[in-house]
Amino acid sequence: MSNLPKRIHIVEEGPREGFQIESAGIPTARKLELIDALSETGLPVIQVTSFVNPKAVPGMADADAVIKGLKPREGVEYTALWLNEKGFERALSKDKLTLRGQITLSASEAFLTRNQRRTHSEHAAEQRRMTASYLAAGIPVETAAVMASFGCNFQGDIPHQVVLGRVDEILSIAAEAGTSIGRLSLLDTMAWATPASVEALVGMLRDRHPSLDLCLHLHDTRGLAMANAYAGLRLGIAHFDAAVGGLGGCPFAGHAGAAGNICTEDFVLMAEELGVATGVDLDSLIECARLAEDIVGHALPGRAMRGGPLRQL
Amino acid sequence: MSNLPKRIHIVEEGPREGFQIESAGIPTARKLELIDALSETGLPVIQVTSFVNPKAVPGMADADAVIKGLKPREGVEYTALWLNEKGFERALSKDKLTLRGQITLSASEAFLTRNQRRTHSEHAAEQRRMTASYLAAGIPVETAAVMASFGCNFQGDIPHQVVLGRVDEILSIAAEAGTSIGRLSLLDTMAWATPASVEALVGMLRDRHPSLDLCLHLHDTRGLAMANAYAGLRLGIAHFDAAVGGLGGCPFAGHAGAAGNICTEDFVLMAEELGVATGVDLDSLIECARLAEDIVGHALPGRAMRGGPLRQL
Repeated sequence: MSNLPKRIHIVEEGPREGFQIESAGIPTARKLELIDALSETGLPVIQVTSFVNPKAVPGMADADAVIKGLKPREGVEYTALWLNEKGFERALSKDKLTLRGQITLSASEAFLTRNQRRTHSEHAAEQRRMTASYLAAGIPVETAAVMASFGCNFQGDIPHQVVLGRVDEILSIAAEAGTSIGRLSLLDTMAWATPASVEALVGMLRDRHPSLDLCLHLHDTRGLAMANAYAGLRLGIAHFDAAVGGLGGCPFAGHAGAAGNICTEDFVLMAEELGVATGVDLDSLIECARLAEDIVGHALPGRAMRGGPLRQL
Repeated sequence: MSNLPKRIHIVEEGPREGFQIESAGIPTARKLELIDALSETGLPVIQVTSFVNPKAVPGMADADAVIKGLKPREGVEYTALWLNEKGFERALSKDKLTLRGQITLSASEAFLTRNQRRTHSEHAAEQRRMTASYLAAGIPVETAAVMASFGCNFQGDIPHQVVLGRVDEILSIAAEAGTSIGRLSLLDTMAWATPASVEALVGMLRDRHPSLDLCLHLHDTRGLAMANAYAGLRLGIAHFDAAVGGLGGCPFAGHAGAAGNICTEDFVLMAEELGVATGVDLDSLIECARLAEDIVGHALPGRAMRGGPLRQL
């Protein structure tokens, strides 16, 4: 039996996921044009940029300018990503952003080494320090994430027990700092999830941590994101990350075929057709996907922007 | 609870679905190159062409030449599509093909009118005549299909009761002719299926016709094909049509965004990862998808050909 949620909450990551892998040539004004359009769709949270080293990620070199130009729409939460203390300091000065501290570990040490040039224990120590910094700055730390939760291009399958271990570690980092985690994101960073592994891992996590809200962050590198999302919906998962048009791809996944997050408008179409409310206006979102395609100057993988919603012609 | 089948049977429709919408410029030799490569993958059935009016479908003008050049591989069944008596007569002379009569009705009369310029009753009468022709020629008639089973771009939602009515009509056409139908294909011609409508329609059909084997033919126009296929697998459906690379699109669907069938290699990847045997070698199939892309000269939507199988780099 399925246990579809009545309503889901989508974090739109297109501007961050998408523009980080494009060349640095996209004008800031066009990024803002997409963010403004997304702000009108009913999406509750938009991740607009990341504060990372512009040498490593040239597409994010204008992060400060994006925030400067941002015209926040009431009721929409704007967030950003950072990977270290320096990035957090840049984010901290931006009062248009909603800052939330997140404790993120990687289930794959091989991925972490390639991605952030740190061992697991160095990374965990950094997360511990950053948790203290967040709390010292008055920023809540109530969310967590596990990278490569389902598998890794450099390490292969990730046993669910490893993920459970990382979650225990996250919860003790939080407890030591005097905070507690309410929501955990399972990041399928390299698209190893299958509907079966989503079911298995979600089941185990719920058995062990029944009060944790789960979120799925699904890449579509092998075409399974929609089936995985459907598996998640059946389990009652109510939080998903997505990227308009299917923007994105991971620059660290190690192959050119790494695809973006699940396409927001295709996912919204499925959810709404399943009777799961998203709060998002599909037609407006499809217009955003077309705008995103125009901005990046190449075809994006989203389908509904071409196929249209389920409506008689 | 899910009821995944142990093994599924995939009909590869890429050469027919794909080349019918491409311009007529693809050399027959290249089509044969793809069919030969597909023959080595373990796929049990390959639909190689269709005998249709070359004025309406220029890409199929070389149907006879395709059959002439075909080098059948033992153990692989080669089939073709036809839509009327004239097409069937052309197919009948081709001894490399396995011919099977199929009774096909459309759940949407609006689609039928646009696609084949016939009313439902004209079409049903034609199917009755053709069933007699098949049987007179010694061709078995054991399969059936319902076009637009889940919805129609020109008619909107199709109530499940309409599909049940069409199935009754099919079964009586078969009974009158003295044959009986063992397998029914639900054709999601214009990609209106959702996981919920797959579950609902399959459930109703099984209640009413428990001995009918069901097959799903899923287009990916709105990005839901993989979720719909997963819904079908959960219900124990063991027959699927698919197209390598995601080749195809329906020339009659009425919009440019009409996409091909579910991508064979992405679907095989999902099925095998779910523990459902396909009998297909994924690596060889991925090579076929790359070949298909080379042949059509433009990007195809398949993901696994870029993302690769779930294997450590």
